[in-house]
Amino acid sequence: MVLRAMRLSFIGRISGAFLIGTFFLVAVGMLAGTVLADPLPSWNEGAAKQAIIKFVNLVSDRSSPNYVTPKQRIATFDNDGTLWSEQPMYFQGFFALDRVKALALQHPEWKDRQPFKAVLENDMKALIASGEKGLMEIVMTTHAGMTTEEFERIVKDWIATAEHPRFNRPFTDLVYQPMLELLAYLRENSFTTYIVSGGGIEFMRPWTEKTYGIPPEQVVGTSIKLKLEMRDGKPVLMRLPEIDFIDDGPGKPVGIQKFIGRRPIAAFGNSDGDLQMLQWTAAGEGPRFMLLVHHTDGEREWSYDRQSPIGRLDKALDEAQRRGWTVVGMKKDWKKVFPFQ
Amino acid sequence: MVLRAMRLSFIGRISGAFLIGTFFLVAVGMLAGTVLADPLPSWNEGAAKQAIIKFVNLVSDRSSPNYVTPKQRIATFDNDGTLWSEQPMYFQGFFALDRVKALALQHPEWKDRQPFKAVLENDMKALIASGEKGLMEIVMTTHAGMTTEEFERIVKDWIATAEHPRFNRPFTDLVYQPMLELLAYLRENSFTTYIVSGGGIEFMRPWTEKTYGIPPEQVVGTSIKLKLEMRDGKPVLMRLPEIDFIDDGPGKPVGIQKFIGRRPIAAFGNSDGDLQMLQWTAAGEGPRFMLLVHHTDGEREWSYDRQSPIGRLDKALDEAQRRGWTVVGMKKDWKKVFPFQ
Repeated sequence: MVLRAMRLSFIGRISGAFLIGTFFLVAVGMLAGTVLADPLPSWNEGAAKQAIIKFVNLVSDRSSPNYVTPKQRIATFDNDGTLWSEQPMYFQGFFALDRVKALALQHPEWKDRQPFKAVLENDMKALIASGEKGLMEIVMTTHAGMTTEEFERIVKDWIATAEHPRFNRPFTDLVYQPMLELLAYLRENSFTTYIVSGGGIEFMRPWTEKTYGIPPEQVVGTSIKLKLEMRDGKPVLMRLPEIDFIDDGPGKPVGIQKFIGRRPIAAFGNSDGDLQMLQWTAAGEGPRFMLLVHHTDGEREWSYDRQSPIGRLDKALDEAQRRGWTVVGMKKDWKKVFPFQ
Repeated sequence: MVLRAMRLSFIGRISGAFLIGTFFLVAVGMLAGTVLADPLPSWNEGAAKQAIIKFVNLVSDRSSPNYVTPKQRIATFDNDGTLWSEQPMYFQGFFALDRVKALALQHPEWKDRQPFKAVLENDMKALIASGEKGLMEIVMTTHAGMTTEEFERIVKDWIATAEHPRFNRPFTDLVYQPMLELLAYLRENSFTTYIVSGGGIEFMRPWTEKTYGIPPEQVVGTSIKLKLEMRDGKPVLMRLPEIDFIDDGPGKPVGIQKFIGRRPIAAFGNSDGDLQMLQWTAAGEGPRFMLLVHHTDGEREWSYDRQSPIGRLDKALDEAQRRGWTVVGMKKDWKKVFPFQ
């Protein structure tokens, strides 16, 4: 009996040790898996990817003098050309033209009136000839004169149905897979990710949470004035045809201060319109990270920089090279551009 | 031997059961303690406290049709008169007058020039006689003409050293203990708490995190224009003497839409300047909570409402009574007003 009990106990211990051993092996394997899993799988190995990971590790290391508290880990992203494409024109431009066409039934007079006539006839030459005044008239006609809730619904409907002319896909399919991974990676490391875009704030908010994981309160953009009115005894916010704030170029640091009230420690852009945001970010104390997306991939996306009327990257490219900011070459650095590719 | 072993085993089981029993009693006690601990200890039992707790439970109950996801649990708070006192004048007014006195050395001409002369001679009658134009001159002289970083330092220095004339204490001591508990209670229940105040956004941001647990990016307020400039090769944001946005009355729903981009489900104010914020909150779908702080305690704080030039509560009080919004009587509903009392 005693011998048998000892044997059973021995076997029990053996199998206990085996189980414990297995458990530790699995646990260690899981930990190693966590540590070793590539957070940026669509990025080629190279200087850009290394610089991102090095920066995130640097500010997350509690024992380092470069440690940054999670609350201070503010990262700001331009949208057009940085998170999604911007060619052959800003996607909000397609929205405006589509809206003119949708509203034309209620405006028979547009058939004979510029700049609307040009839009309805797809006459881009005449549209461009209408100049800034003509374009502003199209923007205000399509973006103002309704409540904020009505505009939100209009944007949601459009983004769900409109297609990009080159790819014949929804515009939100033309987001950059590597940047989605970067947003997620930063958030996993306790960064708060903001959009700071020259695009319309209320044009972006209806879809940024689903597309990028960025909620409305973390979207900064260009705005028109709002006015509180009563309609059928209920308060509504009317969108007025008057510019409130232009969140582009020197406006980006202003927008950051207004909306966030803290200076970012990392900023991501792709054009001269982002230069001041990157300079403002770089001018803070402590570790900093500045990155430009360089559109170098005419096959998978578009190739443009210093001469492009849309998303011109000229002065900011020089500044990046002078100051050692990270420049991402789409063709060289990205395994994949769009999620569907 | 066998018998003794059985006895020991029996005792072991008994004491084991005793230990387990004790453990469970302690655990249940702790749980009960957690559940039963009063989240609002400075609030007297009564309709206001009950209404708050009922609302929080309502929106947090996943099985209820009134359940609200944490992301949608936006609560907006006025500041002056709702989170801290506002008598005998808005505390930012004391800041402005103190700044005139501090700057007077650099402006010898102010001795003979209104409205500055009135401030330097503590001549409130002459100051009021200078009218809105005079007051605006004082505001702009003391709030503009420096960088955002310089202004932040000025506010921090002032808030750390200035004292309220009645209580001879720092102004941040004059915050309402029951409201601090309410802010914490809401955040514990996954609400995001915003300040939406007529006060200056950059006057509040330097101290709201420490005082209320509300970080800069959750502060909405009145602002002056900012302009990016280069100074010694570094970008700075200059504060310009020009109003950008007035976050009061009908401006509050506008500020909420601009900065937050979501409609609150709960709003807290104390004056007619908060009426539109409460109406805007009430007009949304789903469960809503609107609360007014009524200053009824002349002993511990101040007593004022319909006739007060500062923090007038007249139309909003009528509307609250008509619509069944919660009205908190400071004297009746609060055990304690300030933390130091």
